[in-house]
Amino acid sequence: MGKKRVMLPANEVDLTAVTYEPEAIQAPHLTGLALKLFVKLIEARLIGSLILYNLKKQNGMNEILRNTVIPEVPMFKPEFPPQEPETGVVVLEEDGKPEDRVESALKCLPHYDPAACWSGDSTPSFRYWKIRDFAYAYRSRLATPSLVAERIISVMEEFSNKNPPTPFLVSFDAEEVRKQAAASTQRFEEGNPISILDGIFIAIKDDIDCSPHPSKGATTWMHEVRPVKKDAVSVSRLRKCGVIFIGKANMHELGLGTTGNNPNYGTTRNPHDPERYTGGSSSGPAAIVASGLCSAALGTDGGGSVRIPSSLCGVVGLKTTYGRTDMKGALCDAGTVEIIGPIASTVEDVMLVYAAILGSSPADKISLKPSQPCLPTLSSHESSNTLASLRVGKYTEWFNDVFSTDISDKCDDVLNRLLEMHGCKMKEIAIPELHEMRTAHIVAIGSESLCSLTPDCEDGQGVKLTYDTRINLSLFRSFTASDYVAAQRLR
Amino acid sequence: MGKKRVMLPANEVDLTAVTYEPEAIQAPHLTGLALKLFVKLIEARLIGSLILYNLKKQNGMNEILRNTVIPEVPMFKPEFPPQEPETGVVVLEEDGKPEDRVESALKCLPHYDPAACWSGDSTPSFRYWKIRDFAYAYRSRLATPSLVAERIISVMEEFSNKNPPTPFLVSFDAEEVRKQAAASTQRFEEGNPISILDGIFIAIKDDIDCSPHPSKGATTWMHEVRPVKKDAVSVSRLRKCGVIFIGKANMHELGLGTTGNNPNYGTTRNPHDPERYTGGSSSGPAAIVASGLCSAALGTDGGGSVRIPSSLCGVVGLKTTYGRTDMKGALCDAGTVEIIGPIASTVEDVMLVYAAILGSSPADKISLKPSQPCLPTLSSHESSNTLASLRVGKYTEWFNDVFSTDISDKCDDVLNRLLEMHGCKMKEIAIPELHEMRTAHIVAIGSESLCSLTPDCEDGQGVKLTYDTRINLSLFRSFTASDYVAAQRLR
Repeated sequence: MGKKRVMLPANEVDLTAVTYEPEAIQAPHLTGLALKLFVKLIEARLIGSLILYNLKKQNGMNEILRNTVIPEVPMFKPEFPPQEPETGVVVLEEDGKPEDRVESALKCLPHYDPAACWSGDSTPSFRYWKIRDFAYAYRSRLATPSLVAERIISVMEEFSNKNPPTPFLVSFDAEEVRKQAAASTQRFEEGNPISILDGIFIAIKDDIDCSPHPSKGATTWMHEVRPVKKDAVSVSRLRKCGVIFIGKANMHELGLGTTGNNPNYGTTRNPHDPERYTGGSSSGPAAIVASGLCSAALGTDGGGSVRIPSSLCGVVGLKTTYGRTDMKGALCDAGTVEIIGPIASTVEDVMLVYAAILGSSPADKISLKPSQPCLPTLSSHESSNTLASLRVGKYTEWFNDVFSTDISDKCDDVLNRLLEMHGCKMKEIAIPELHEMRTAHIVAIGSESLCSLTPDCEDGQGVKLTYDTRINLSLFRSFTASDYVAAQRLR
Repeated sequence: MGKKRVMLPANEVDLTAVTYEPEAIQAPHLTGLALKLFVKLIEARLIGSLILYNLKKQNGMNEILRNTVIPEVPMFKPEFPPQEPETGVVVLEEDGKPEDRVESALKCLPHYDPAACWSGDSTPSFRYWKIRDFAYAYRSRLATPSLVAERIISVMEEFSNKNPPTPFLVSFDAEEVRKQAAASTQRFEEGNPISILDGIFIAIKDDIDCSPHPSKGATTWMHEVRPVKKDAVSVSRLRKCGVIFIGKANMHELGLGTTGNNPNYGTTRNPHDPERYTGGSSSGPAAIVASGLCSAALGTDGGGSVRIPSSLCGVVGLKTTYGRTDMKGALCDAGTVEIIGPIASTVEDVMLVYAAILGSSPADKISLKPSQPCLPTLSSHESSNTLASLRVGKYTEWFNDVFSTDISDKCDDVLNRLLEMHGCKMKEIAIPELHEMRTAHIVAIGSESLCSLTPDCEDGQGVKLTYDTRINLSLFRSFTASDYVAAQRLR
């Protein structure tokens, strides 16, 4: 008796009284033999459920999910009240052709000055080629997609001989790249490029279908039980724009981790420092963009999997609004948090790729009834106004809760640039119940990932997963249906 | 290996090849001491999970939930594509006053002829008084709400002395009824009745808050841990129309059964035959209406709990579209199947009560974005046209899968009346994957009910529930979060 506690309804929470509490995670730190033993124990029916019960209890999960009255109805998908139309934006036609949307996005960008890039003599220092740099080069016959393809292929082949392997890609086929590049080159020769994305090299995370490559989700076996029959919807939209797919990018196995560590194929290294992680789970997509080899990549993000590696690799990643992209053809196609998002070296390039891939699934159109997608116009002097209308929320205590002030200082620099150069407004905010939200998130993403994997795990494939993933799946298996509903109430 | 099976996507199922398979449920038939022992065993952590695993396996649940690839995204709430506007309907303003909506509903009804009811000499045979019969009597000073209240109170008191008890109501306060009736009587005396529902007697199922009564959900303890502070939204809307609340109607404990059997307070008997069940879970609401004591009642329905007892008691029950009524103030206020629906002796009275209580919750307005509610006009010669536009689906094999042809013959009579008298069209249909749907339903409703009860069960209240309920909750506890997500994919 007396374990029950009652949360306040969301609209009765006093935001002025919220105090920041750093999350203290209680979990054993294990490597080597001890880790292997732990996996065996946690997978054992009885002892495993005991270990997990205690770990969850220590981390306050059972208290929230089983002893707390949560006075809210479940919110199964991220939903929000209708919003006022924004100013300074261009509405995109989500049912239209991707190449038309890319054309609209192009008109949102600032004037392109080739001289800034093509100053005649090649500067020796490293510089990212933007999509419009390639587009200019192809149209001015300074380069062809086939020429670029050969350069990339030679780097990839050099990379593949490294020991230990640190691959950007887990599936790569030089001939397939050459074939796509030749077709694009021919379109340019005939004066008929499809769009600004024609001849642009893009990598696809290994959990998104891109024919003829297998989709392994960086496992050793997924492609054997789940053959790829056609492109994922987002990939097919890019293909219609003339994109050249370089291959399937490395990732944290099944997306169930944020380091990008991958014992199956080798771990992608951070291009800025090979001794550092890329972050994950979209490790390969972020790294291949950060390396300058590809203009863009597609990742998936349900808990930071685009945002984290983009941050760690110093590139731009977009976690789109839930439901903006169609997940059909992704391994995780039935979650309530996961999206497909673009990664590129600049905001401009992200806008172009996003314009191509966006468009809600038929199911999401029914359930979410999404508003029309739009992009800000950055092309004229109005651009400053568009960004100036944004309010940026900062929860300073959380913002500063980092391992080193180097990190928060850098983030402050970016924030200040948004305020000073672009006129954004900053607003100090407090986010209550962070621990509750984290609990709700792990239960949601964990249960939904597990549901997709269960038929294959029951079929005996589970033991072929890495120890890391097996521990996660054991945790996810311990969540009850009631826990899941409680998590949606917390949401 | 080899347990995995793959379902067809919904749009690839060949409906012409669907064969009807009667559901064969494998479960032990237990009573008395054996039942008590079974409950102890099923609640024991180890042996219980073993028993449940085998029961679920025997009934093909594990196969569907854990070995099957379900190629659909989860549908967490009942959703459907936008529909064409209907003809011959009156749109109701869901944000308006309930008394205004009732007034609009009244205009949809056929002309009221008091002579048909008030033929001068009272006929001896039993007849249901419709809401408009009471309204006419009150307005013509043939009766007052206080006079009717005294009659009902005397019957209730006679009933309460029965042994064994077979109560319509589990909470009844004669003084409270007299007080409400006196206020209504005064309004009529002053010539100011609020609406056609003023002075109408309505019973509220014990899982919907109706102040000052406790809400026990027919348990022995729920009211101790969950005090009632105010009316449920639907009850408050009725109160604004001048309704007199007779008390809290009996039900199957926590709504977790369809017989209406209730060891805590006694089982409501079917007014047509006291040796028969009323059906449930809204046993009291259906029976009190069928007895003629109340014009209407509110029930809740997540799996037939309004429809089943209404059928068995020969009255009209409405399972509204999900989300049409606001569940705030109901014990089960966070499910994805449950609604509050009216029960009355005629379709006309159901329309009047429904018009009063309808209106989606703020959360459902965001997530479901419901179309405007409407009622058919039955008031003129167009009425036949309104019903004539309806198509009635009949799955003949399922329709005829009943214990006795007495039942299907009666149902056929009703169906023929709809076709012949009202011009509805009948269409033979086939519903594929009934077993899968039943599985999805029990996982959804069970998990959502359990989530609401878990904090109290963890707090030690679970053992105070009836054996019936405890078995159900043990089953619900065995559902994993992954099972829940799989059930939503089946949906």
